[in-house]
Amino acid sequence: MKNYASRLHAAIREKGNAVCVGLDPRVNQLPAALLPTGLNPVELSVEEAAKLFEEFCCRIIDVVAPLVPVVKPQAAFFEELGPAGTHALANVIRYARSAGLIVICDAKRGDIGSTAGAYARAYLAGADPDAAVWGADALTVNPYLGTDTLQPFVDMAIERGAGLYVLVRTSNPGAGTFQDRVTDGTSLFEHVAKAVESLASQTSEGGGYGPIGAVVGATYPDELRQLRDIMPHVPLLVPGYGSQGGSAADVAGAFDEDGLGAVVNSSRGIIFAADQEPYRTQYGPDNWEQAVEAATRAMIEDLAEHTPTEKLR
Amino acid sequence: MKNYASRLHAAIREKGNAVCVGLDPRVNQLPAALLPTGLNPVELSVEEAAKLFEEFCCRIIDVVAPLVPVVKPQAAFFEELGPAGTHALANVIRYARSAGLIVICDAKRGDIGSTAGAYARAYLAGADPDAAVWGADALTVNPYLGTDTLQPFVDMAIERGAGLYVLVRTSNPGAGTFQDRVTDGTSLFEHVAKAVESLASQTSEGGGYGPIGAVVGATYPDELRQLRDIMPHVPLLVPGYGSQGGSAADVAGAFDEDGLGAVVNSSRGIIFAADQEPYRTQYGPDNWEQAVEAATRAMIEDLAEHTPTEKLR
Repeated sequence: MKNYASRLHAAIREKGNAVCVGLDPRVNQLPAALLPTGLNPVELSVEEAAKLFEEFCCRIIDVVAPLVPVVKPQAAFFEELGPAGTHALANVIRYARSAGLIVICDAKRGDIGSTAGAYARAYLAGADPDAAVWGADALTVNPYLGTDTLQPFVDMAIERGAGLYVLVRTSNPGAGTFQDRVTDGTSLFEHVAKAVESLASQTSEGGGYGPIGAVVGATYPDELRQLRDIMPHVPLLVPGYGSQGGSAADVAGAFDEDGLGAVVNSSRGIIFAADQEPYRTQYGPDNWEQAVEAATRAMIEDLAEHTPTEKLR
Repeated sequence: MKNYASRLHAAIREKGNAVCVGLDPRVNQLPAALLPTGLNPVELSVEEAAKLFEEFCCRIIDVVAPLVPVVKPQAAFFEELGPAGTHALANVIRYARSAGLIVICDAKRGDIGSTAGAYARAYLAGADPDAAVWGADALTVNPYLGTDTLQPFVDMAIERGAGLYVLVRTSNPGAGTFQDRVTDGTSLFEHVAKAVESLASQTSEGGGYGPIGAVVGATYPDELRQLRDIMPHVPLLVPGYGSQGGSAADVAGAFDEDGLGAVVNSSRGIIFAADQEPYRTQYGPDNWEQAVEAATRAMIEDLAEHTPTEKLR
């Protein structure tokens, strides 16, 4: 069972939910318990900060690996620490894979021709974590440069049993600037969605979900339901739950009737739960990992109550 | 003189041309003279390959720094070597800055909100190479996510005297898949161009070129001329000359009447000149740096002959 959709859905069924924990470490939000006593985080060197990012993320992985199927490290926060940060990113991906998690590297890459091929070889390890230097199961990619620029990623996804998530409808307030522009009666994001569905249906094995997924924000629930219909072969990655304002009811339309076909991401709401009520009062800053666990369980329950993921139990 | 357009144009005037040398190292095209005797490049570890990438690029910088104003390292080829490769990228950027070159990091980043801010802080060093871990003067960015996602990059560009190059019209054969879609009588790439011009004119000092640039491929010469007109405050980065098929006449429309407002990139045609005629026969594999110099001088002459950059001399 090598292909991405099979591996993803096996993990979702095993854990009984479709939660993706976003690993977005930030220096000024690291738990005080991780820092040398009395140190202001801004005094950390990039090498020290990168080591703490790695420890922070690996301890989160220890907490969430028994509970959820997927984690999504955000490359930007690691790259902000320079080469030391990218080293931490590679280690975090490897650690998550060894804990049995599906890893989506959220790097939103995209370029033309042989350059796209270099990104694909770098990030899309697929079924074998050692097949690429960054070791991820899947990568987020940007479609603006055209469908020919997605092809090197698609080829590598098939070869290695990896997945792609093409940006279709992002969760930011200004997502519509270009994505909403209508041509031939159809908005740009729908044109992108149709191109993604075409790639996914051509590459799916046995007519089910294929390796080519799509990013669709939880902050636009009507469009989420519409895009689920347009892309029956496409696994969705849904950001925007929690801190960005999306509710469990908002993401219900992302799933098929069996509760499959999507993962819903939460980053800050889980990894920095100890900074937020009710967890801050309940656990205090020293028990930040218990806060992470409680927030993860709460999200699993919330999704089970309001979406078809209830059927996964 | 801190702002990006001033620094860029001072460098262009000083060198008397608008050539950008693209640093796109590839393991299987490294000069044999750089490799340990008898070693097949595919046998290199990523750490060994990264060290050779750094040496190769720094030796190219030694050759081209007296001749051209700008270099553009392509992040993808460094990232393909993992964390060791990104370390080499940081060193190459630093070396190029110390040689007095303007450095455009071609990483085509883009994300929402605070994540875009992390990329901006990471790459946009601007006037002071030590202001960011990656030390670049400028960064290429992708507009698909919307203009609100460009704002963190714009803010950082202004704060640090850095530049941005927003993808408007890329040089690949399938660029038109989404970029050519027409709404309100205007193609998507023109809508993006107008948004970029708006950002550039709002942030230019004294009404000239601003810090917000655009990527426009040499492979679409008519659109290049049209986009030059639509974006009078926007410095252009023009890929696609040489190996991708764009000629000097094709890029003439990128420049204003003084020969300013654009840089034209060549990557493979310069850095791997020793593999190509007439340089292969003339210099042979051991004199690859002389081939790089000859190809660079030939491109400078070609542009001077067919574009307004003749006036820079």
